[in-house]
Amino acid sequence: MARYLDLPPLAALRTPNPYLAFAHAIELFYQPPRYAPGIHPTAIIAKSAKIGEGAHVGPYCYVDEDVEIGRNAVLHSFVTIYRGAKIGNDFFSHAHAIVREFCRLGNRVILQNGVVIGGDGFGFAKQRDGTWHKMLQAGPAVLEDDVEVQANSCVDRATIGETRIARGAKIDDLVLVGHGSRVGANTLLCGQVGLAGSTKVGSDCILAGQVGSGGHISIGDRTLITAQSGIPHDLAGNTHYSGSPCVDHRQWLKNAAALNRMPDLQKRVRELEAEVEKLKSR
Amino acid sequence: MARYLDLPPLAALRTPNPYLAFAHAIELFYQPPRYAPGIHPTAIIAKSAKIGEGAHVGPYCYVDEDVEIGRNAVLHSFVTIYRGAKIGNDFFSHAHAIVREFCRLGNRVILQNGVVIGGDGFGFAKQRDGTWHKMLQAGPAVLEDDVEVQANSCVDRATIGETRIARGAKIDDLVLVGHGSRVGANTLLCGQVGLAGSTKVGSDCILAGQVGSGGHISIGDRTLITAQSGIPHDLAGNTHYSGSPCVDHRQWLKNAAALNRMPDLQKRVRELEAEVEKLKSR
Amino acid sequence: MARYLDLPPLAALRTPNPYLAFAHAIELFYQPPRYAPGIHPTAIIAKSAKIGEGAHVGPYCYVDEDVEIGRNAVLHSFVTIYRGAKIGNDFFSHAHAIVREFCRLGNRVILQNGVVIGGDGFGFAKQRDGTWHKMLQAGPAVLEDDVEVQANSCVDRATIGETRIARGAKIDDLVLVGHGSRVGANTLLCGQVGLAGSTKVGSDCILAGQVGSGGHISIGDRTLITAQSGIPHDLAGNTHYSGSPCVDHRQWLKNAAALNRMPDLQKRVRELEAEVEKLKSR
Repeated sequence: MARYLDLPPLAALRTPNPYLAFAHAIELFYQPPRYAPGIHPTAIIAKSAKIGEGAHVGPYCYVDEDVEIGRNAVLHSFVTIYRGAKIGNDFFSHAHAIVREFCRLGNRVILQNGVVIGGDGFGFAKQRDGTWHKMLQAGPAVLEDDVEVQANSCVDRATIGETRIARGAKIDDLVLVGHGSRVGANTLLCGQVGLAGSTKVGSDCILAGQVGSGGHISIGDRTLITAQSGIPHDLAGNTHYSGSPCVDHRQWLKNAAALNRMPDLQKRVRELEAEVEKLKSR
Repeated sequence: MARYLDLPPLAALRTPNPYLAFAHAIELFYQPPRYAPGIHPTAIIAKSAKIGEGAHVGPYCYVDEDVEIGRNAVLHSFVTIYRGAKIGNDFFSHAHAIVREFCRLGNRVILQNGVVIGGDGFGFAKQRDGTWHKMLQAGPAVLEDDVEVQANSCVDRATIGETRIARGAKIDDLVLVGHGSRVGANTLLCGQVGLAGSTKVGSDCILAGQVGSGGHISIGDRTLITAQSGIPHDLAGNTHYSGSPCVDHRQWLKNAAALNRMPDLQKRVRELEAEVEKLKSR
Repeated sequence: MARYLDLPPLAALRTPNPYLAFAHAIELFYQPPRYAPGIHPTAIIAKSAKIGEGAHVGPYCYVDEDVEIGRNAVLHSFVTIYRGAKIGNDFFSHAHAIVREFCRLGNRVILQNGVVIGGDGFGFAKQRDGTWHKMLQAGPAVLEDDVEVQANSCVDRATIGETRIARGAKIDDLVLVGHGSRVGANTLLCGQVGLAGSTKVGSDCILAGQVGSGGHISIGDRTLITAQSGIPHDLAGNTHYSGSPCVDHRQWLKNAAALNRMPDLQKRVRELEAEVEKLKSR
């Protein structure tokens, strides 16, 4: 107690959410670069493309036919928007990001560098001679409002239907969202996560780094999955899973501890077998 | 049975390969963007480069000296072909794909966005003072006919010799093929697979997502490897492997089940030990 | 013995470090492309940017305001240097590499294609309504002298402070270095390694392919980590770890062997239980 009484008088910031307050504090001290409205003369914007007021389109951006982009967009440089893509207001795209044909992005979407939205899904049909026939990937990738995708991640377009990232979801670097998958609202996919085709991830989930999911799997809302876990079947929500193949987190902790005792257990079973043999011959 | 009898008369499509028929059906309904022949005025094509007839070279592509590209190529935009690369007919390169110096690509090769063919392999020789000396990566990456590489994947060039992807192999997003590796014909490498240097993968294999292979390893033809498996040594073909380090798939299924029973098994062994103690003192 | 005596007279190269000698031998036989000094007319260099003598700046490079680059730089093509970045001498950047705002690179840094230095870290603070507030990423990524980063890898900028790659460290393709991490001198991060935020890796370590580390973890100097291992807590140096979650390498070898014997062990424990029952009823 005395320690507190000895403290000099201090100003204190009290908050029920210190991490959020920390975020706001950074905003007082750091100004990221701002990009004033204007179209750089080297930017190529197709005649039929529509870009709303207040846009900054930097050097060597390329916006193809029939694209629509809302107000206050920033396209940093070397951004490529393929034909027919539709993008909402307050779009921010860092250098070298790519939005493929017919994809649809909501408002306040942020793409970090090198992101590929709507690249072809990995779909091939086997032919009688063992070769693979490429399946057209006809469906767009759709990013709802407030989605951010970080550097060099790939959200593939769908074979048919769509790939959808729901509002407020955040995707870290080098993540793969396979064709026809759906990621729920406010879900976080951490670095190097991979979702095979047609995975459905619920809302408010966290998939930690390097988690992989099989295809055609459904993961309930508010699911937490430990780093490097592998998801082989549907998972109920509101639960914490770990391991590859993943199991309930508490089970996994017990398994990991047990695994380290296995060599010892083997020895004890051998000893028991010897003891039992002795008892039998008594 | 009654259900079938009650059906109204229907036209039916019968096919021995429904997935392939589905692929053909999509082609009837979806037309991906077409790219008419022509060289965009912002494309930079070196004087000594040769590009065959019918090519579409889009905005801000860069084709360096001594490159040769066959007929009917499409270079979407921001495609970079380093000097001396040789590419066959019907090449399709999406925006921001890169082919490095002296690499060789066959006919009908498709590169999705952000692909790097022939980047330097990870080769360094340790010096007496603990620092690493960069080894020149002198050998090209070679992609045979009908290879497709998807978004942001890397096929590294070789230290010496070559890195080779055989005809008809398909490589998903964010895959790493290390220097000097060889991937066999019609093999699929799914998302985020990593092959360390000098891996030899046979033909008609499927390596599921996030599989990793050690270097200098040989994997036989028609091998199937479950997602997230790790390959520590040579694998015979015609088999299904799983786990990290991988074992025969049936063994792995048994191991995974046994692992979940380990905490219980430990308890039972403790109880047996107590029972045997009691029996000994009888 | 006779075999040696029968050999014709041969010149021999003797060296205490054959791999390094091999590296030097390649340099005698292979010449990678050279890039002569000069600024391509399509390169955009902001007025306040300073680039030292001897630079080759290729087509469609973009160097923003307040950037400083030392002598003898090569920027191949489509290289983007955001404002305020500071880079030393003998910089070599392949096509489509990106250095973000205010990052600092030492001398002799090499970036392979598609690398992103200083993209935003994955930092979000949860708000009361379940949505995520983006945290500004105020700190730069810093690469010291002689660092090489290979294709499509991401070294994220820091929330505050910095992300630092110490001198001589080498980073393979598709690696993720999370925000605020530190990688020690001469350490190798092999392909697809992922470090979560604020990981501290010591010097002279090797993290093999697809290794993942949790955040806020410290790894000692001269640590070797087997491919696909997962690091859940601090690791002492001078040791070899394996597995996910990782343990001492020798323990992991025993565990892996024991795991394959588990189904058999279960059977033996069942048999023992039956034997003990029989003995009890004697």
